[in-house]
Amino acid sequence: MSITIPCRQLFIDGKWREPVKKKRIPVINPSTEQIIGDIPAATAEDVEVAVDAARRALARNKGRDWASASGAHRAKYLRAIAAKVHIINAGKIHFGLRSPDSSSTVRAPAIEGVAAGEEEEEEERDDQQILSVGTRRRRRGERERDLPIVWSSSSDRCRRRRSPIAVVSRSSFSNLGCSLISEGRSRLFCAEITLRKSELAKLEAMDCGKPLDETACDIDDVAGCFEYYADLAEGLDAKQKAPVSLPMETFNCHVLKEPIGVVGLITPWNYPLLMATWKVAPALAAGCAAILKPSDLASVTCLELAEVCNEVGLPPGVLNILTGSGTEAGAPLASHPHVDKIAFTGSTATGSKIMSAAAQIVKPVTLELGGKSPILVFEDVDLDKAAEWTIFGILWTNGQICSATSRLLVQESIATEFLDRLAKWCKNIKISDPMEEGCRLGPVVSAAQVKSLI
Amino acid sequence: MSITIPCRQLFIDGKWREPVKKKRIPVINPSTEQIIGDIPAATAEDVEVAVDAARRALARNKGRDWASASGAHRAKYLRAIAAKVHIINAGKIHFGLRSPDSSSTVRAPAIEGVAAGEEEEEEERDDQQILSVGTRRRRRGERERDLPIVWSSSSDRCRRRRSPIAVVSRSSFSNLGCSLISEGRSRLFCAEITLRKSELAKLEAMDCGKPLDETACDIDDVAGCFEYYADLAEGLDAKQKAPVSLPMETFNCHVLKEPIGVVGLITPWNYPLLMATWKVAPALAAGCAAILKPSDLASVTCLELAEVCNEVGLPPGVLNILTGSGTEAGAPLASHPHVDKIAFTGSTATGSKIMSAAAQIVKPVTLELGGKSPILVFEDVDLDKAAEWTIFGILWTNGQICSATSRLLVQESIATEFLDRLAKWCKNIKISDPMEEGCRLGPVVSAAQVKSLI
Repeated sequence: MSITIPCRQLFIDGKWREPVKKKRIPVINPSTEQIIGDIPAATAEDVEVAVDAARRALARNKGRDWASASGAHRAKYLRAIAAKVHIINAGKIHFGLRSPDSSSTVRAPAIEGVAAGEEEEEEERDDQQILSVGTRRRRRGERERDLPIVWSSSSDRCRRRRSPIAVVSRSSFSNLGCSLISEGRSRLFCAEITLRKSELAKLEAMDCGKPLDETACDIDDVAGCFEYYADLAEGLDAKQKAPVSLPMETFNCHVLKEPIGVVGLITPWNYPLLMATWKVAPALAAGCAAILKPSDLASVTCLELAEVCNEVGLPPGVLNILTGSGTEAGAPLASHPHVDKIAFTGSTATGSKIMSAAAQIVKPVTLELGGKSPILVFEDVDLDKAAEWTIFGILWTNGQICSATSRLLVQESIATEFLDRLAKWCKNIKISDPMEEGCRLGPVVSAAQVKSLI
Repeated sequence: MSITIPCRQLFIDGKWREPVKKKRIPVINPSTEQIIGDIPAATAEDVEVAVDAARRALARNKGRDWASASGAHRAKYLRAIAAKVHIINAGKIHFGLRSPDSSSTVRAPAIEGVAAGEEEEEEERDDQQILSVGTRRRRRGERERDLPIVWSSSSDRCRRRRSPIAVVSRSSFSNLGCSLISEGRSRLFCAEITLRKSELAKLEAMDCGKPLDETACDIDDVAGCFEYYADLAEGLDAKQKAPVSLPMETFNCHVLKEPIGVVGLITPWNYPLLMATWKVAPALAAGCAAILKPSDLASVTCLELAEVCNEVGLPPGVLNILTGSGTEAGAPLASHPHVDKIAFTGSTATGSKIMSAAAQIVKPVTLELGGKSPILVFEDVDLDKAAEWTIFGILWTNGQICSATSRLLVQESIATEFLDRLAKWCKNIKISDPMEEGCRLGPVVSAAQVKSLI
């Protein structure tokens, strides 16, 4: 089931480019601890070349090629990337909702406003709607449905929610103002996932150790995210030069939205390509030129994104991808005086360093760091469902999420019984190589990370 | 015309409190360079006490007294402060628009939605509407009017705009996408300002050297700003617990807006009370507890704000005011681990230091630093009006504004003629003690600041 890790170089100015110092970093499969390939290791010298390429991309043709082009123009590239990711993600992943009262499969609602197309396309979009809950809209008038809870030892299927979850009953809820999984009507559904997984999903699973089911969800989300920001890029055009009303005729005033410039995007290893996309897609939609520095623990799929950008003809220098270590590639990017903004997701310690470096030239930063979210369980809850969601909340992505529900607060009256159920559910989890069918828990991403946990 | 500088202490936990180290800083009138009073000098020890008071204010009565009270509840205090400032600002300031075609005074449009009240109140609000252009709304259907341009050597009256200004003709404008003062229809109006100035305005003028006309405008804006944020605080209640639509019935999801906590507000000397208000009012509206550290070059009116808060019964600890130097009071506030956010307006060098300190514990910062805005003058403009706006743009607030139009770019064909006009206008400016009637330019704020300019 494994595939070969492609041998890539840095992606700078629309070209594959060997690192100035010619160094490479081994790719270790965390499941086997075998070296399965390598990635280029950028240093400060490569950062210089990439920043220069990004600045030229912004200025090319007086900005008309990218930075001051219409949002609709940029959206075409984002859509092309999304389509390409869909194609690479060739494995057909079909989620359906199995009704608790019958064996029939209920199709998920389609996206609002999607024109009727070929059956194949329509079906893909349906899937995506479920995969992108929270960013996708229901068709007007469509009734809300319970989402399947499928992180289940019995059904051995996967679904996920990334937000902190509070499991409480409705009666408790009214006093708490917390988020809620209501008891009663929701039932255990399951997802039908075909066996064939995509190339990108496989690379991701081998590189970072996440179960293949989960990486397949991620890659589909990657395409959805590029499409989402393509929508926003198009929407930008209507907002451009919005007039500001002033109580006088002497002045005209309007709002011009402009890209901030060259942005440095430093991303983590728990959702390698998806987290990168969360930063790359909005930066490109806004008209920025970006330099992506993914985690050296999981960069393989980000280099494949470079190949996708090449294939869709993204203007050179608009997206540059530098793999390498935090100290040798990330730090010079964060402190570079010609990088106008840094966005970082990762550890609090590194975030603090990045903010310190940015402070020297008062560079804006966006930081997404750490997390210790609670899950609250009250006595009037459905214990089995609460146990399932608790395990899901802490163990999805091999338990490596900033928004994992890593604190469990249980009402005393049900504490013993609830912990018993939790233990029972845990025993049923399949812990294996992430490429194995039915794997629910793969390895921690690296040996060093294991040490930091223990 | 001068008045005595009140002798105040630090304002902590709703009480006047002598600094732990009992130090005081002299207040120097920049116009006479005489010591006219003193302010308390806070140190790290006082910051500790203030932070503790602010945290207790947030937690008091389980937050119900302030942080988790309704926005409408907090708005009452903001409105009471605004009313008190209006009362202290007892001088009746009446702005009218004199039509260019007649000698009659045209009343400014009233605020949208203001209920008909007593004539006195209605008139006050009219004034305020003009004083707060950009944040106030016109009555529905009311026609836009030209605002008076009254920073004029002939009319010797004042008005201000703080935004960068581009003086261009309509024909040039279409190619540039800049802001615009259109030529043609606007004419020189003037403002009628009564002679009696408020106590706060006088204190501000003596403390920072701004012409009394300008500080009178500022103090009225202070009241307007508290009212503006009272509106927003009230509006917050309707937005609380806004549901987030999810395509499933199993979950309830809604947005809770919560104050960030204890905020440190470090403000400059060019609009001493107004810049403080720009930070204090939104912080209080949101339910934060605040520690204000104004510039040691101009803190007198901020200590009077403390007196106002006392008089309106603001809960203790909700607003604490620590006067003192940046190094002895500002720095320990910026780096304090129990201050959840810092907002700073001032120099880029200090902003960088504050961001560095914040980075150690990844504390959010809002920084408003420096500025070098251009004014563009094209050949088809009304030269006299352009000259007046150019002088206004660079010399308002004695030329000490981050958004001053400190770069002048003139089309070559009119450069000589335009510079002649500028010189002529400049010669007519009255440079004097800011308390003198008709003063248009007072002293730079301090001897040290003069050195930094030369």
